[in-house]
Parts: sequence; C-alpha cells; structure tokens
Amino acid sequence: MNKRFFFSTLLLLTSASVFAEFKALPDKAPVPKDNPMTPEKIELGKMLYFDPRLSMDGTISCNSCHNVMFHGGDGRPVGAGIHGQRGGRGSPTVWNSAFYSVQFWDGRAVTLEDQAKGPLVNGVEMGMSSHDLVIERVRQIPGYISAFKKVFPKEKNPLTIDNVAKAIASYERTLITPNSPFDKFIKGNKKSLNPQQIRGMKLVDSIGCTSCHAGENFSGEGFALGEGNFQPFPQIPGSKFDKMYDLTSDLGRYEVTKNPEDKNKWRVPTWRNVAISAPYFHNGKVKTLDEAVRVMGKTQLDMDLNDAQVADIVAFLNSLTGEFPKQTMPLLPHTPNFSITPDP
Amino acid sequence: MNKRFFFSTLLLLTSASVFAEFKALPDKAPVPKDNPMTPEKIELGKMLYFDPRLSMDGTISCNSCHNVMFHGGDGRPVGAGIHGQRGGRGSPTVWNSAFYSVQFWDGRAVTLEDQAKGPLVNGVEMGMSSHDLVIERVRQIPGYISAFKKVFPKEKNPLTIDNVAKAIASYERTLITPNSPFDKFIKGNKKSLNPQQIRGMKLVDSIGCTSCHAGENFSGEGFALGEGNFQPFPQIPGSKFDKMYDLTSDLGRYEVTKNPEDKNKWRVPTWRNVAISAPYFHNGKVKTLDEAVRVMGKTQLDMDLNDAQVADIVAFLNSLTGEFPKQTMPLLPHTPNFSITPDP
Repeated sequence: MNKRFFFSTLLLLTSASVFAEFKALPDKAPVPKDNPMTPEKIELGKMLYFDPRLSMDGTISCNSCHNVMFHGGDGRPVGAGIHGQRGGRGSPTVWNSAFYSVQFWDGRAVTLEDQAKGPLVNGVEMGMSSHDLVIERVRQIPGYISAFKKVFPKEKNPLTIDNVAKAIASYERTLITPNSPFDKFIKGNKKSLNPQQIRGMKLVDSIGCTSCHAGENFSGEGFALGEGNFQPFPQIPGSKFDKMYDLTSDLGRYEVTKNPEDKNKWRVPTWRNVAISAPYFHNGKVKTLDEAVRVMGKTQLDMDLNDAQVADIVAFLNSLTGEFPKQTMPLLPHTPNFSITPDP
Repeated sequence: MNKRFFFSTLLLLTSASVFAEFKALPDKAPVPKDNPMTPEKIELGKMLYFDPRLSMDGTISCNSCHNVMFHGGDGRPVGAGIHGQRGGRGSPTVWNSAFYSVQFWDGRAVTLEDQAKGPLVNGVEMGMSSHDLVIERVRQIPGYISAFKKVFPKEKNPLTIDNVAKAIASYERTLITPNSPFDKFIKGNKKSLNPQQIRGMKLVDSIGCTSCHAGENFSGEGFALGEGNFQPFPQIPGSKFDKMYDLTSDLGRYEVTKNPEDKNKWRVPTWRNVAISAPYFHNGKVKTLDEAVRVMGKTQLDMDLNDAQVADIVAFLNSLTGEFPKQTMPLLPHTPNFSITPDP
C-alpha cells in the first residue's frame, strides 16, 4: 500500500478519537517512596542546584547548563563545563524531566537522584575528582551542615552524596510547566489552539510521530521507571541528513550497554517546550524547529514533509510551551571569614 | 612621636564620638537624573544581567562572576570568562556597588552604566567582539524587543547598548543589603553588636582604617561621582606580604592613567559583607579575613596587629553582613523555533 494513502486513510479513521490519545501535563510529578518531598528539602536542593562551588573551580553549577530561568537547557549545541571544555551532547531540559522513565540522552541513569550525581564528577562538566570531594566541599559551608540536619533529621550523618542527590532531585520535581495552550485544549478550552495547530496535532498523530512521542510528556507512555523509551535515530539511515547533521557518529545508548542492537538508539526526548528549546537533537546541530521536523519526518518515517505540513506541525509544537512558574532565587550559604574555592 | 602612643592617645580623644562617624547603609542608592528607575526597567535589567546569550558563546552572564545569589562576587581568586579564561583580578561584589563613586578595582568606569558595558566586550570575560554584536544578538530575541520599547517608550530606536547598560545599572541599584547588625547598632539598637564587635569598631577607627574605609559604604566619604577614593596598596611597601601575596605586580590605577603617581593605587573597596566575600584583595590571593586584616595593618598602617586586635576587627567586620533581599528569578525571553547561540 502507498504510504501516503495509508496515512491519509489512517487519519480519516482515527481523527475522531485523536484528542483522546493526548494527555495534559500533570501538576505534580511522581515522587519515589524513598525520597518524599518537603519544602525544606526542595529549598536545599535549589541551593545546591545553583551552587557553583559544587564544581572543581567554582564556575559551574547544575543551572549553568540546565538553566531554569531559560528553557531548562543552555541554548547551546552542547554543554560547556569547567575550563571551557565542551561536552559531546546538548544539555537536556530539566523542566518536566521528572516525567521521564530514564535520565540522560542515553538513559544511563534511572532516577533524577542518580542523574544528579553524574555531572558533579564528569571531567568536562563540573569536574570534581570524586563525590567525596563534593561532600568535603559542602561540609565546609556551615549553612549546608545545618540545612542537611534539618532536612534529614533522623540520619546520624545526613551530609552524604545520596542526600545531596535527593535534595536536588526534589527541587527538580517541582520544575513543571503546566497550562500550555495544548493542555488547556485537552482540558476543554477548544479555543486555545488555532486551526493550524489542530491540523498539526492531528498530523503528528496520523503520520506516527506520537507512537514514540506519546503520553503526557510526549516522551513515551506506559514505561515503568528504568524502562526507557529508546528508539533508533535515524530509524531509517541513509538520508542526506545523516551526514549533514552528523547523526550517526555518536552511538547513543550503545555507549552504555555495548549491545549492538542499541547503536544509535536514544531516549525519546520530550516535546514539552520544544519550540523554545533550540538547537535540536543530541548534538545540537539543527538550529531551527522546522528543520528538526523535516529531519524527523525523513529519518524516522521516511517522509518528505511538505512546507505546509512542517508549518502545521511547528504550529502544534508551539502550543506545547507551558507556563514557567515564578521562582525565588536561593541564597547560597556563606563561608564567613574564609574561601573554599580553589583555582586549579 | 611613637606611632602606638599617638594612636592610643587618639583613641582616648575620639572614642566618645566614634559612633557619630559611622553611618548606616541607606535603603536606596543614588539615581542619576538621566536614568530614572522604573519597575519595568529594573526587571529588564535583571533579565539582561542573567542572560548568558550576552556572551560570545552563551556561557557567561553578568551573574556568572557577580553572583547575586551568593555575596555578589564568585568566591574565586579571579574572574572566569568564556573558554575557561581567567581574568587578572577578583570579581568585585555587585551588592551595594551603587554607593561607589567610581567602578572597577581601578576606577576605570565612573557609573554603573559605564561599568556594565565593559565585561560584555572584554575578551577574557563575556568576549563579544563588539557592542554592535551584543545589540544584534539581543535584537533577535522578540521578548527583548518589546521590553525595550516598553521601558524606553519615547525613543525611536530603544535597543541600544546605552539602554542595555541603563537597564542593567537600574537593576544593580536595587542590590542593597541593609540592616546589618552594625546598621541596627547605628540606628540605636545597642544590643546588636557584642562587646568584641564594639571593641573592633573603635579599633578600626582609632588606628586609622576608617580614614579610607569611610562613610556608609566604608569605601570613602564625600567623593563626588567620578572622583574615586584611590589609595596606594601597599601604602608602605617592603613588608613580607608584598611578595607573599604578590601585592605589587599589578599596578592598578596606573594601568588606566599611566600617571606614575597612580602606581599600585586602587579604589578603596567596601567593607559591606566583607566577612562573607573571601578571598581578598584585587588578586584574591588572601583566603581568610584575619590574614587580610593582618596584611592591611602592616601594609597600610605599618602595624603588627596582635591576635586579639585581629579578632576584634574580624568580629566587627562580621557585623557588616547585611540582609540580602529575596528576589524572584527572571524568565529569560525565548527565541521560538530557532537558536541564536553560536559555538565558536
């Protein structure tokens, strides 16, 4: 059967029920039983998240690459760490990251807690030589000592790397952008999307984008924690885009598992706030959303989307930009009378 | 006359009136007539202050080195700019900087407006190749276009580097830390300083520290805008500290004026929040406040302060840590559907 005809038919068959497959973003993220959220823990996590002293030379905080005042990433092709070093991949947004079933582009961490420990000791990110050094650094800051005692009152030694990660993860679970025009539409305000956006919404469903970009976070539905929604990208290798945007040299999930079946597989990223999160893909090589849509059409669905289709999909994706809640800035605790940041 | 005897006598003579010479920090900073503060301008300035897209590679914002969530500096010996480059001097705190009569360690800018333009195009700081490029970058961000129009409604072309600087300076003029224990004491709460702090307060006055560290900001009193309080450091060269902390290789004010009289002269820095602003001096070589006090005693007053004197002065300086007002985070305006940050 001709693919276009197939999809057109599918569109007709399913359009009545399309809206039922889409889901609004919840106001709250799932919370693991072993890390309940408290206001004090969230505030401590926010302080740690913004504290550049958690990096080797005091220049990089979690927020440097995952900027919560921005779209939760850094707007750059790839992350930038201490001493001007560049990472190999773009910085995924922290907003709504609590809705993923695995973390990182390659899913090498399951939970936000696991994720938070990684960049601290990654040589091209925050560059601490060990988690012990992180704790040694934090231990010198009196305000943290008291905060950890308060947040983890039952623990004899509350200042541990696991508790650093728990606090940061708790803060990150508050980073949710609800009430996008799409969400309002799903909740019943049919005027919150314009006709073009509705066309785009039907199109991404009918041509198959949402078979991967499914669920409330558009990153896969029904995946248990740790069960990542990994998909090949490119699904159909050989298009001009492979070379144009260097899509295949980073082997993605394979670098974690060394399983040949995982070559060029990636965690399906969220569509939430995708319109404001350029540049695109794991290497940040694609600078515009319309080009990203064209690339995905070709590499994943073997479709040469026309300009009108691309425009409709881009219009729909723009409806997924949510409301970023106003936040107060943390006040980082001081080290009265002395300095703890070396200049290596 | 023996110097110690002289100062002891001076102490006796002046101690009754010591408190009268000290001044509380005002709640509001002086505002230049050509840059009145408005809530919209302050908010725009805050956005610009936190926006790393104002740096060449999108990694450094004003806040990277002058961190308002911290003590207004970066806690490092010297500033760190794009590509891991290091500056030659420490990052002065932005808090209460509106009370200076000149800006930068060497006073090379008069106003906060002038100051704000410098780091943008400093190759080892934000590294933009020109102010035109800054404006070109900002012009691509729709949210800034509308904000500049709103903030400068009478101007035909509101998006200029001067207006960028005006907005940033307006935000910085809100960064004031009032109500330190010292300020409360000056305003009449005699219990807000303990006896040791009061001894330290009298001591800094009697031995002459406050002849330079004068006025509400402890950075000089009675200086008109542009008339900097420049002082030699070391005042008395030749002590062991010159070499120990490399105090003389940076010629300070001389680098601006090329006037031999300005060699090793520096703007007198504020004492406000000094206890939490380690490391110390223009090169950040001194890591503790007690050592900084010893160095200043020797290099400026030719005094070998004893441990008790140092402790008293440190106690007093700790009373100058003010209240850091809670701030909301800005939301940086987006570039929907495209990326503007290059990766040079």
